[in-house]
Amino acid sequence: MAERVGRERVLRATVRTLAEKGFARTTARAIAGTGGFAPGVIYYHFEDMDDVFVAAMRHTSRARMRRYAAEVDDATTATDLLARLRRLYDEDTAEGHIAAVQELVSAANAAPRLAAEVRAETAVWQEFTERVIDRQIGGTVFAALVPVPELARAAVAAYLGMQMLAHLDADHSGVHQLFDAAATPAAMLDAFKNDDE
Amino acid sequence: MAERVGRERVLRATVRTLAEKGFARTTARAIAGTGGFAPGVIYYHFEDMDDVFVAAMRHTSRARMRRYAAEVDDATTATDLLARLRRLYDEDTAEGHIAAVQELVSAANAAPRLAAEVRAETAVWQEFTERVIDRQIGGTVFAALVPVPELARAAVAAYLGMQMLAHLDADHSGVHQLFDAAATPAAMLDAFKNDDE
Repeated sequence: MAERVGRERVLRATVRTLAEKGFARTTARAIAGTGGFAPGVIYYHFEDMDDVFVAAMRHTSRARMRRYAAEVDDATTATDLLARLRRLYDEDTAEGHIAAVQELVSAANAAPRLAAEVRAETAVWQEFTERVIDRQIGGTVFAALVPVPELARAAVAAYLGMQMLAHLDADHSGVHQLFDAAATPAAMLDAFKNDDE
Repeated sequence: MAERVGRERVLRATVRTLAEKGFARTTARAIAGTGGFAPGVIYYHFEDMDDVFVAAMRHTSRARMRRYAAEVDDATTATDLLARLRRLYDEDTAEGHIAAVQELVSAANAAPRLAAEVRAETAVWQEFTERVIDRQIGGTVFAALVPVPELARAAVAAYLGMQMLAHLDADHSGVHQLFDAAATPAAMLDAFKNDDE
């Protein structure tokens, strides 16, 4: 019976439970309740709850990364990229990814294995952001102003911080205003790159 | 006996306990242990633990704000400002302010009064950051590129996110590299403003 419920279904239920109930109330019983399976299913796939949280962190991070990579690879201009990032941010919120990650990041302070996983996923996002920024400003004068790795680190940190604050507020209008405000520099960057060609 | 131990001493002990033990283990007994007073002292000054955490959030935020305001008011150039911010960041870390705030922000997701206090303090820091940015780029071409309130919001979020990640890593070298990387744009801004005079 247990083996019919897949590992991924357990992880999806874990992410949803984290987002809805917070870390402290994300017990095996609560996850099973969310997913509609017996608690035993969880221990069929995972050693212990620590193991579940580490896998959930990786699962939600990688699933979002696939979406981000697909969207960002298709972006033609900085303006187009910005529109895509805005939609991705809204997806992050709607799917409970933001809320779940925030719970896991907080919990990681008291859970060394989870902390290592959060660090590893953060590094993956920083590398991804580096490539995205590099594709936009590489070879332009802007790349000489601030090193791309540091810019990527700041961007990932800002994204995490904004999500934290927006989640606390249950108000994402501030983040949307920031996307609006970025339209002018994005358009300028596009104009600058066209002039250059 | 209780009234001889001041309210502020309780709050300082609360911040230290949050930083050292995390939110879940910051009980009245733990705070009393850190501060070297009887647990009853806490209930002499505060209604309940909720009240203690709300007051601790405000206390540590305002104490740091006074330090930031004093340093920033004395800054002459963008380069000087950057050097001061770097020292203030190191103070934030050393004093346990960052760790305590991170614990309180996480806990705020399940504590509405604390969430309201975090929001209020975040707004104070955003206004402060707005004034700082405005003093640096107000009247220059940069102010036309991105609206200052949105830039301030992003800066506060980035600061919070960086602190979260650095705290998790127990590694502040990434933040220091970011301060290093900002030296070039700061010097350019200073040169730009001198040319303009």
